[in-house]
Amino acid sequence: MQQIPGPAVPSSRAVLRPIGVNDAVITGGPLARWQEINHEASIPLGLEQMERSGALPNLRRAGARAGEGDGPFQGYRFQDSDLYKQLEAVAWEHVRAPEPGYAAFIEQASAVLARAQRPDGYLNSHYQVVKPDKIYAELEYSHEMYCAGHLFQAAVAAARAGVGDSLLPIARRLADHLVEVFLTGGNDGIDGHAEVETALVELYRLTGEGTYLDLAAKLIDNRGKGLIPDSGMGMLYAQDHLPVREADTPVGHAVRQLYLDAGVVDVYLETGDESLLECSVRRWEDMVATKTYITGGHGSRHDGEAFGERYELPSDRAYSESCAAIASIHWNWRLLLATGHGRYADLIERTLYNAFAASTSAGGTRFFYVNPLQRRNDLVEDAYLGRRREWFACACCPPNIMRLVASLGGYLATETAAGLQLHQYAAGRIEAAGARLRVETDFPWDGVVRITVEEAPAGDWELALRIPSWSESTYVDDGPARAGEDGYFRIRRSAWRAGDTVELRLDMTPRLMRPHHRIDAVRGSAALQRGPLVYCFEQADQPEGAEVDDLAIAPGAVPRPVAREIDGVGRTVLLEIGAVVVNQPRGGLPYAGTPLATSTSVTATAIPYFQWDNRDGGAMRVWIPLA
Amino acid sequence: MQQIPGPAVPSSRAVLRPIGVNDAVITGGPLARWQEINHEASIPLGLEQMERSGALPNLRRAGARAGEGDGPFQGYRFQDSDLYKQLEAVAWEHVRAPEPGYAAFIEQASAVLARAQRPDGYLNSHYQVVKPDKIYAELEYSHEMYCAGHLFQAAVAAARAGVGDSLLPIARRLADHLVEVFLTGGNDGIDGHAEVETALVELYRLTGEGTYLDLAAKLIDNRGKGLIPDSGMGMLYAQDHLPVREADTPVGHAVRQLYLDAGVVDVYLETGDESLLECSVRRWEDMVATKTYITGGHGSRHDGEAFGERYELPSDRAYSESCAAIASIHWNWRLLLATGHGRYADLIERTLYNAFAASTSAGGTRFFYVNPLQRRNDLVEDAYLGRRREWFACACCPPNIMRLVASLGGYLATETAAGLQLHQYAAGRIEAAGARLRVETDFPWDGVVRITVEEAPAGDWELALRIPSWSESTYVDDGPARAGEDGYFRIRRSAWRAGDTVELRLDMTPRLMRPHHRIDAVRGSAALQRGPLVYCFEQADQPEGAEVDDLAIAPGAVPRPVAREIDGVGRTVLLEIGAVVVNQPRGGLPYAGTPLATSTSVTATAIPYFQWDNRDGGAMRVWIPLA
Repeated sequence: MQQIPGPAVPSSRAVLRPIGVNDAVITGGPLARWQEINHEASIPLGLEQMERSGALPNLRRAGARAGEGDGPFQGYRFQDSDLYKQLEAVAWEHVRAPEPGYAAFIEQASAVLARAQRPDGYLNSHYQVVKPDKIYAELEYSHEMYCAGHLFQAAVAAARAGVGDSLLPIARRLADHLVEVFLTGGNDGIDGHAEVETALVELYRLTGEGTYLDLAAKLIDNRGKGLIPDSGMGMLYAQDHLPVREADTPVGHAVRQLYLDAGVVDVYLETGDESLLECSVRRWEDMVATKTYITGGHGSRHDGEAFGERYELPSDRAYSESCAAIASIHWNWRLLLATGHGRYADLIERTLYNAFAASTSAGGTRFFYVNPLQRRNDLVEDAYLGRRREWFACACCPPNIMRLVASLGGYLATETAAGLQLHQYAAGRIEAAGARLRVETDFPWDGVVRITVEEAPAGDWELALRIPSWSESTYVDDGPARAGEDGYFRIRRSAWRAGDTVELRLDMTPRLMRPHHRIDAVRGSAALQRGPLVYCFEQADQPEGAEVDDLAIAPGAVPRPVAREIDGVGRTVLLEIGAVVVNQPRGGLPYAGTPLATSTSVTATAIPYFQWDNRDGGAMRVWIPLA
Repeated sequence: MQQIPGPAVPSSRAVLRPIGVNDAVITGGPLARWQEINHEASIPLGLEQMERSGALPNLRRAGARAGEGDGPFQGYRFQDSDLYKQLEAVAWEHVRAPEPGYAAFIEQASAVLARAQRPDGYLNSHYQVVKPDKIYAELEYSHEMYCAGHLFQAAVAAARAGVGDSLLPIARRLADHLVEVFLTGGNDGIDGHAEVETALVELYRLTGEGTYLDLAAKLIDNRGKGLIPDSGMGMLYAQDHLPVREADTPVGHAVRQLYLDAGVVDVYLETGDESLLECSVRRWEDMVATKTYITGGHGSRHDGEAFGERYELPSDRAYSESCAAIASIHWNWRLLLATGHGRYADLIERTLYNAFAASTSAGGTRFFYVNPLQRRNDLVEDAYLGRRREWFACACCPPNIMRLVASLGGYLATETAAGLQLHQYAAGRIEAAGARLRVETDFPWDGVVRITVEEAPAGDWELALRIPSWSESTYVDDGPARAGEDGYFRIRRSAWRAGDTVELRLDMTPRLMRPHHRIDAVRGSAALQRGPLVYCFEQADQPEGAEVDDLAIAPGAVPRPVAREIDGVGRTVLLEIGAVVVNQPRGGLPYAGTPLATSTSVTATAIPYFQWDNRDGGAMRVWIPLA
């Protein structure tokens, strides 16, 4: 089997090398299920939406010749990027589980793009159709390079997947145009929405064209020098408040910051500029300690879709955009490759199984843009929030979700000269680092992971297993397995034989997680977690009369796992726990010297956060008050 | 002394009649101090800003004839309203403490307005200068009627104050134009920003012109029928989601909702339409129980400057706009007049001494637009927030503050056939309801209020004293004073004599106030309150090494009042209380099964919330965790 490189393939300097996107086949568990619904439901819906939402029609308009019919531009100025992400999703899916329509879709879309592209290489339907006189004149909000970046990533995916030959030349013509204008042409403009940086590096990796890397490095070096005019959202919004090497904490629009930092690490990986890795790690550490939801989500504010202050982590108004979860996984993946440290794979796991997984309905046809950690029981202002929707006017998230799910296999493992590193646990087969492994597990419902070496590597070889930080007591083959400082437990043998097995047993004890005292929003509360899964109380699971908004965990209560199959949700493990329903009179100001409250004991039930909102749209909360 | 009616003078149906704006003279305590700095510092600054901010220059541009110089329009489309509020402030201040410049300013501004006003009565500098083709064509965000309303209120104030004769005719011409277009002209347009409704009713009260009342009633009746195009902020933003009689809870842009409800009660007061009073009271009850900060502030979201959901009351991201505090006082005042119930005066007191009072610096020259209940110690995104500023690009708040402070006297008492009702306690003289009272008190620093009847009313007469809901044990002349159901303690005598005194003793015991269990944002915390004053911990008052962000109230701690005079702050009563400094390691995710935390005992000090941010701009919080 020929290896097909997946997303983010550093050509040098990576401590870990990614496996191919086809080297890991996931056959069971939630990850397999997500790939299945992605294939059966999400991607078909996305392909349909490329016409309905205007993405393809806009580009046809841009390519229309005199006398051909056209209509008004549809949607946002960054509408093209929906198509590019969709193309990338289809390219990866073509590797994983090809369908005859995939190659055709890529070819047809490429034909539309080829026709729309100007002779000089410029390509952006909004500016070509609506504002031809403003090309590159309003980069602070134009998203021209952002859209270009997504085209580059689609073209890289198609090229690696060996499908749709005509996409790459279009991407290269546009990239060359960007180089001519912004690298060699003296234009110091920077897109207000970072994203093209990481894409240019990927295009460089594929093509070897050094000017793409140079342009990425220039855009990163020049950020924070006031070259981005204020779009009205302030300098932090687009991370232009400080040079990237000086910024200590992620700020502003979360998706922009996270894509930017993915690009920062990508440029480090290719240039070896240690100052870039150093500043990115510094921001990562601050973000994890002070600006990360327990779900792995990022972005605490609707206002500016922004990170917010340190320890500002409200549950109800959490923005935690689905795209931020994806961008965070991209950044963490690059940090993992660059450093080999398991803490980045830990955060990928947390994000993947919670903030990211929650973004899609059990059926794969409805999506969250915003992923709050609480939904009250009588929404008025936010009646439109809290339920997934089929599509969005600003539909950045759905095709972004699809491209990540289609390429998930690539994130399970890496290889080095020493052997193979297993980062995420899912039933399936992995072929890399000279070995072929079979992984049997019911993870994350169960903590036993049985790895069989089906094809043994020759000589000295090492299997490294990530020990998740949540697993307090871990065993490998009946011996306690303490992770090294980098978070991995290493099994090194001089002679592996086909049929050798390794059994990893992770600690699936449900835990009551308590927040740092500075997180005001969830003081006096606990969140339930079992393995990588964060839980929530959802109204549908509670006993009659027990409103989620009034539930509190009983003192000393211990959660108890209960396996279930729930209509519309699927397979799950619930947690039952002793709770009380607090009853406090309402009327007058809700502040008193000695509040009157009574409570009734009940058994409450928690469901994995990623499975919420597949039933009645009732109240939900991750953080539960402690009675 | 001739009575000069103040703001909001119902001509019928009011249970209580307002006294004149000159009938109460405040001579001591914070209210007197605020009037003093308003006179000496705020109003002079405001007058200067009328030129600098473009308010007057814009109107000169609107009135410029051919050949006269002009420049670009300055500021926001509602810039005119700054001038109108400033004019109103000056008119009331002309009654309270006249300065020669006041009448001149009103006359000069009136001349500019007269020149700017179109022959048909239309007047709005933005639309006349910038968008003459869009007059009344974008009411959803034009603020044309909003600005008109503030002109009407200025003109009413000037007319009542007997200053600036030429302002009222200008206002009437504009009001007549609105009537022609929107009442008799068949245009069903409604301004996206409510405010003109209450102003039209006041203009009707002054002039007796019934069409003004009719237009106010029409604008209210037609709201919630989809007549306001969506400005992009949604239907709740401008309270157009439901007819006012059907809306159960305040929603959307807080200032709009609060001005709208002031207008709703005003129309009830003049038309007797009980359904209007009923729906407004219903919204008030819901707001007080679920959407009111302990400071009396309203508006939980920066996003849309909006109310937010029930029990969504974050401290850090509280919007609590200064204008919302003012609009709430306007609405509560009308509800008090309409019903005679002390709960509205209670909320006026809470708002006045906390959310409203905090909006202005101790020196009167710096203002808050947003009034959070928490400021963390290392702001990044909000570095621009948390400190008062001299002026704002959108300067709706400062002149609004000035007009309220100048007219405060009118809010202290009311009269009925039976006698006089005292709603707010401040040292001074009140002449109303056939009596002349002297009030001696050091309120709110002390709870003793001594009222001397200097001129006795003839025959049967009643003095009603509001017993604030925070006063748990109240005495009048050595006897316990239990308030009636309406919140008042009544002293009725058949023969009052000059020199009779009544001594009210309010309970000034400091209290630890606890929030309703549904208010997630402040769970496990308490707020200190003494009398009407809500307190906060500010960094400047804490012992070395005790960061406000780490302080928690020690179990069983009892607050102790300490009188002080602080440089830059002025006279105050601090509260000292036993506390601990929580120390919890930082690094990695801030969630753990068993968090490690140590703590050190200290004595912490709280300062009245309204006096915060007069020193170093350090951390502040109203709600303090309970250790």
